[in-house]
Amino acid sequence: MKVKLISNILDANAAMAEQNRQLFKEQGIFVLNLMSAPGAGKSTLLEKTIEELKGKLRIGVIEGDICTTQDAERIASHGIPVVQINTDGACHLDANMIARSAQDLPLAEIDLLVIENVGNLVCPAEFDLGEDFKAVVISTTEGNDKPLKYPLIFHEARVVLLNKIDLLPYTDFSLDRFNQDLARINPLATVFMVSGRTGEGIENWYLWLLKEVESKVQGSYSNNGRCLNE
Amino acid sequence: MKVKLISNILDANAAMAEQNRQLFKEQGIFVLNLMSAPGAGKSTLLEKTIEELKGKLRIGVIEGDICTTQDAERIASHGIPVVQINTDGACHLDANMIARSAQDLPLAEIDLLVIENVGNLVCPAEFDLGEDFKAVVISTTEGNDKPLKYPLIFHEARVVLLNKIDLLPYTDFSLDRFNQDLARINPLATVFMVSGRTGEGIENWYLWLLKEVESKVQGSYSNNGRCLNE
Repeated sequence: MKVKLISNILDANAAMAEQNRQLFKEQGIFVLNLMSAPGAGKSTLLEKTIEELKGKLRIGVIEGDICTTQDAERIASHGIPVVQINTDGACHLDANMIARSAQDLPLAEIDLLVIENVGNLVCPAEFDLGEDFKAVVISTTEGNDKPLKYPLIFHEARVVLLNKIDLLPYTDFSLDRFNQDLARINPLATVFMVSGRTGEGIENWYLWLLKEVESKVQGSYSNNGRCLNE
Repeated sequence: MKVKLISNILDANAAMAEQNRQLFKEQGIFVLNLMSAPGAGKSTLLEKTIEELKGKLRIGVIEGDICTTQDAERIASHGIPVVQINTDGACHLDANMIARSAQDLPLAEIDLLVIENVGNLVCPAEFDLGEDFKAVVISTTEGNDKPLKYPLIFHEARVVLLNKIDLLPYTDFSLDRFNQDLARINPLATVFMVSGRTGEGIENWYLWLLKEVESKVQGSYSNNGRCLNE
């Protein structure tokens, strides 16, 4: 009974996620599902990314939190559209929440939609939201053993942002062990070593993300490399 | 349907937790449910606590992880009984898992049982395991906004261990804001500022825990302060 119900929930979520994906594709929106444990630094990285890219892309944000609107206020201060979801105790976002929130966003004016998930390394990994890709933020202060202990989220992520590298000298984090373990879970992940606080290393992430959005979204409006005077 | 089922799950868990509580009481075991986000430093604090108290108390541990037995191996190296639970994807421990694991522990030889929960600031807070009290570990590198963002776990905890205070100078963590917010969520929480890495501040936690165990468990065998020659 319990297993059946959970299976039904995930099936229903997958169907709704596919509808979201179709909607975002029609609207020419590239969607990033940003996940991490509490306090890994998602919001700070997101704020820096918005500041860097908002002159080049039209960005919108869906903020997921159990409660409070602190993060949405932080994001809104950058002058971009943001919708806050309060899950009221639930440990992850689901595709239905995204479908409802999308109605409150000016979709025609967004190129990149970032969904900041609830701080949790477990449950969010199981729920497709209709995103183009998942990124997971992990900080050096959390320890190098996280890929082996929370394999699903690292397996699902296309990008791993190793944050707080400015604190690396003050921790026992082994970069070698982390990279070895991550390679066992997800050898294809793209890893960026960054510090949201000092800005170190984030440039590569900006450039990578910008290129992704341009190739996926703006590519659909491009001339596919044909001569312009044709 | 969904709400009903979840309510049934929590009711069934509460009944099983009460059975656990009764069993532990009969056996004279004090039980601590230790919770935190991934990487806050639960295991390191637990190892230090075991080293300090194992000459004074007989300690046993139930280790909860989604996968791997790394933490159980770390604990077992201290020469105390430990049982590993792998939840295989589930985001929290429940009372039924504890009941089954308890069968594999030498209960008659344990004064203090520490249950190290799955690294997650959300779901574990909802599940009573039959413990005497819950403690939550939060690290300075996670940011001072966690009590407001994850209120249930801070509300449920009798003890809050603010860990990694050695890293405080390198973070933007506001101790004032943290204490103010925590006081709004749970004014009765006992807070210890500690560093699992350097050992700073842990002495107070050891002493407090030892006193709790002695008064609750060993108190049941004491003479309640009557004259010994009565």
